[in-house]
This record gives sequence, structure tokens and C-alpha cells, in this order.
Amino acid sequence: MSKPRILSGMRPTGLMHLGHLVGAVENWVQLQQDYECFYMVADWHALMSEYQNDTASIKKYAYDNVTDWISAGLDPGRSVIFLQSDVPEHLELHMILSTITPLGWLERCPTYKEQQQELKDKDLSTYAFLGYPLLQAADILLYKAQAVPVGEDQLPHLELTREIARRLNYLFALKKNKQVLLPEPEAKLTRFPRLLGLDKRKMSKSYDNAINLSDSSDEISKKVNLMFTDPSRIKKTDPGHPAECNVYGYYKVFAIDKTDKLAEDCHNARMGCTDCKKSLADLLIEITKPFRQKRKNIEQDPEYIKKTLREGAQKARQIASQTIKEIKEAIWG
Amino acid sequence: MSKPRILSGMRPTGLMHLGHLVGAVENWVQLQQDYECFYMVADWHALMSEYQNDTASIKKYAYDNVTDWISAGLDPGRSVIFLQSDVPEHLELHMILSTITPLGWLERCPTYKEQQQELKDKDLSTYAFLGYPLLQAADILLYKAQAVPVGEDQLPHLELTREIARRLNYLFALKKNKQVLLPEPEAKLTRFPRLLGLDKRKMSKSYDNAINLSDSSDEISKKVNLMFTDPSRIKKTDPGHPAECNVYGYYKVFAIDKTDKLAEDCHNARMGCTDCKKSLADLLIEITKPFRQKRKNIEQDPEYIKKTLREGAQKARQIASQTIKEIKEAIWG
Repeated sequence: MSKPRILSGMRPTGLMHLGHLVGAVENWVQLQQDYECFYMVADWHALMSEYQNDTASIKKYAYDNVTDWISAGLDPGRSVIFLQSDVPEHLELHMILSTITPLGWLERCPTYKEQQQELKDKDLSTYAFLGYPLLQAADILLYKAQAVPVGEDQLPHLELTREIARRLNYLFALKKNKQVLLPEPEAKLTRFPRLLGLDKRKMSKSYDNAINLSDSSDEISKKVNLMFTDPSRIKKTDPGHPAECNVYGYYKVFAIDKTDKLAEDCHNARMGCTDCKKSLADLLIEITKPFRQKRKNIEQDPEYIKKTLREGAQKARQIASQTIKEIKEAIWG
Repeated sequence: MSKPRILSGMRPTGLMHLGHLVGAVENWVQLQQDYECFYMVADWHALMSEYQNDTASIKKYAYDNVTDWISAGLDPGRSVIFLQSDVPEHLELHMILSTITPLGWLERCPTYKEQQQELKDKDLSTYAFLGYPLLQAADILLYKAQAVPVGEDQLPHLELTREIARRLNYLFALKKNKQVLLPEPEAKLTRFPRLLGLDKRKMSKSYDNAINLSDSSDEISKKVNLMFTDPSRIKKTDPGHPAECNVYGYYKVFAIDKTDKLAEDCHNARMGCTDCKKSLADLLIEITKPFRQKRKNIEQDPEYIKKTLREGAQKARQIASQTIKEIKEAIWG
């Protein structure tokens, strides 16, 4: 029996950081065991937010992100890794879905206003941005993905995708006594650990508070050293409050087995922040060491990522073009 | 020196009728002399209004319309005749334009509400329909058409196209000290004669009041016989009022040289409505005779239209893919 199919993706708007690793890519690597995985660089989605900026960086980040994905364990031999814009069928399905999707569904999409809020330094009141969830729906439905790994906050988007699939199935298939065209994807609800930036805000390129997967050991040490700790602990002899401390939060994500002892030592002022940070830096350097090694290997061959994406697009198009063929036949007859 | 390029198109939502002939296709045939012409069957646009109906008829009408276009004098050897959906680059440019087009430009587009009004039996409050003028802009800009033949009512659409081209040129080229990507197309303002339907409403398939290009001589005679004339002329001996008469309106479009005498004979009750209609029917049959003959020839070869459209799409894609390549290079670097 063939494995169920999964699709996920990321916008190439910056370097991949540890937040992406624990919030997505680590999970992607795991999913390769039990799923047929499609991992997509969402460059059209990136253009929707970056059109007024240095758009050339989208392509640079795309290649860089894929390098990081593979460094972190994605296997192009097992997973289909591709650029969204290399598969024109995404736009064909996007157009087909556009023709049947009421404007109100998009205007009322709970994440629409949220995202506009979050990216409020950018002008997102464009036609494309309103259709953002519709392109996401096309991305998923094009591959007839049975499952989509999502955090709880993304559930409304997936619900919209299911609703649009139902509407397409009804209008172009069931109503005409034809077979269902697109399966409704299930949410594979995943609890992702929450990793904050160095300054305890959301980890993000635009806040300049991220530890990137491509950072050197030195950079990691320097960045960890800058991290905010418990603000009420002024001197080393003051008792610390691990629950307030961002550094402790990192231990909870990356070394849960060390946290009991660490909390005690901090609370009893047996361990100072400098040592605690030093030890976290060592830990992060250790964890990311194989990624840096792999990255170095990949970078030896400047054609490798291009080739990987070219092959990925070919594999993706095999599935995508078949889906479009079926839908077009149902529509045009 | 190469001829300037022109693009125009039609939605395949019904049989081609005399209204289309005098309102567009006759002009298209003329334009072939001085322009490099691209004539497009706008099947994506058709899907936007027909998604809840028999969508398979879109494809049938597409083939039928092209048969009529060629019967009426379009020459596939000189003009590029193609299906919009055969050229995926339309959707790529549509997406690119979508990312830079403020929603307000579309919401305020004067023809948007008008069209919703006109097609009020259909649910057009979809995402795609709001983007209708944006897809039209993509259709035109993709071929860098220097001119677009338009009636006065379509000027706002073309103005939007020009504005979007300017914005794309600014964001992705001028701002980055690169060359302009897309020329702003000029309106080739054309006064099209106004031909009403048999019942004096707008000629339209949905009103069932059209004389189709593919109608037989008998059908034309029957239909002309049904036409509304001057309602105040009850008996043949009553003086007629040509200005009020739809049949007279047809003479004005198809035989302007006969109208002086006709108006006099009608006004003086020298000619009755039955004779006047008979003579109009003969005239229309005569005019459309070569079209019917040509249509018959075309229908002998069931592959001819398919082949024509396949070749048209190839030619269109040569230009379209080059435009997309240039724009993508400017965007992605």
C-alpha cells in the first residue's frame, strides 16, 4: 500500500533559523518515514509580501532555505522538494478555485486580518494577498494531499481548503454525476515547541533576533551571550526564576532532560547566567554541527541545489499535471 | 519595420451572432492589414461567469466561435488565434500583477459593478470575478500589445491596464534602475455600430433574440420576420417612422446606401413591413452566404480548428514565455 501524501511549505523571506527547525523542519524530517512528502518553497507567497522590497532576495533565500532543509535531514531521494513557481499548475488550480470561491470566504478568513496586522510595515491590501489562503488551498489540493501538518493557529486555513474542495467537487463533479475530484485533506495537528528570539519576542529575521541554521559556532556563542535572562536576577548570588528566563526556555526545547537540575541550580543560585549560557551555546553548537557539516558538503557543488529543485519540480509536475488534467476534463468536458 | 501588435478577445459563452460581427470581428478582419493581431478565446473569463452552469459548453462554444471567426475572414496564417487556457503564461502574469495591485483599484473599477448588474442572474461575487480586469490586463500586457481596439465603454478597463503596467515598471524596473518591462498599450478607440436583437433589446444569447453567424438562410428569414417594427404602424397604409423601427436600424448597419430611399418609402407608406423585412432577410442571407460556405468547408475537416488553435497557442507562447522570462528575471534577479 502506498504511503499517504503530505504537503507543507515555507516562504523564502529570510535565512532558516532555529524557530523554523523546531517549528517545522524537524517534524518534516520525521514525516518522511510514514508519508510521501512534498515540501515546497512558496516563492509566489513570498512575492505577495515582498513585492515592494528587494525581490531578488526571494530567489537567494529559496536556494539557501533548501540547502538548510537538506542539511537538517530532508532527503531529496525520498521527499519531493520544489519551488512553487516551477510548477505552473499551482496557478491553474488557483484560477479554477478563484472562480468558485465567494469573496466573503476570504474576507472573513480569520488569519487574513491577523497577518495584515503582523506584517503591518508592509502594504498587504493587494488583490493577491486577499487570495493568499486560496493559493495555499491550491498548493495542497493539487497533490491530493491526505494530510497537512499544522499548528492549531493554522486550522482555519485548512478548514477553508476543505470547504473549497467540497465546493469544487459539488460544482464540477457530484452535480454532474461524476466522481469526486479532490479529497478533503485532514489536519495532522502537531504541537510545535515555542522558541522565542534572543530578545524574547517572536523569532524573526525582521527583529534581528534569530539564531540561523547557517550561523557559525562563534556566531551562535555570541548570540546566546546576548540573550535576555531573568531580569530580577542582578547578581550571580541572587536566586533565579527559570520560568521567566528565555535561556531556560531554550533548554526546555533542546534538552528537556537537563531542565530539572538546571532549574534547581538557578533557583538556588548555584549556577550563574554566564555559565548557563555557555553551556546552552555548546549544546546548540553540538546539535547544529552535523547541519553545518552537511551544508559545507552541499556548497562544494554549486549545481546540487539547482539540480535537486529541477528534479523536484519534474516529480511534482507529474502529479500536478495529472490533477489539472482531471479537473479540466471535468470542467470543459 | 514590424507592424504594431494588437490583442483582442471574446468570451466563448454562446454562438457568435451578428452583434459580435459588427461589434468586433468585422473590425478584427480589417485590422489584419496593418497590425500583428492576437485574437484570443477567453475561456478563463468565461468560466468566471459560467462556473455554476454547463461548463462543458465553454469548450464547445470556443471551437464554434473560432470556426465563425475564420469564416468571417480571420486568417490563421496572418493572425494568432488561440485559447487563453492553452497559454499558462496568462496566469503567471495575472499572479504577478495580483501581487502589486491594490484591492481598491479593482473594487472601484467602474465596469465591475456594471457587469455584476448586467449578469445579475449569476453569482459573480467570487474572488476571480473581482480580478477580472486584472486578467484582461495580463492578456494584453503579456504580448506587449501597443494597441487594443475598444469601444468607449471599455476605456476604464484599458486605463487600469495602463496604470498596472506603470506600477509594475516602477516596482520591478525603474526603481532598480532597470529598463521598462512593459509598454503601456494605447486605446484604439473604435465606434462600433449598434445592432439590437430581434426584440430591440441588446442582442444576446440569453435573450434568445440573436441572428447567429451559423444560422441557415431559412433561420435568418424566420428570425427577421419576427422582428419588431414601428409599433404605431398598424396597417400598411399608415405612414411609418423609420427612426423607431429596429428593421430600419439593421439597414443602417448593413446597407447605409439604401436607407434614404427606404426611409422615404416607409414614411410615405409606399413600402410595407413585410416587403421591407423580406428584403432585409435577403440582404443578410447574401452578406452571410460566404461565411456559411467557408464554415461548411472548415467543418469538412474536424481537426482543422484544433490544429489551428494548437499552432496559435505555440505562436502565442513564443511571445508570452519571453515576456514572462524578462519579468521573472527582473523580479527574482
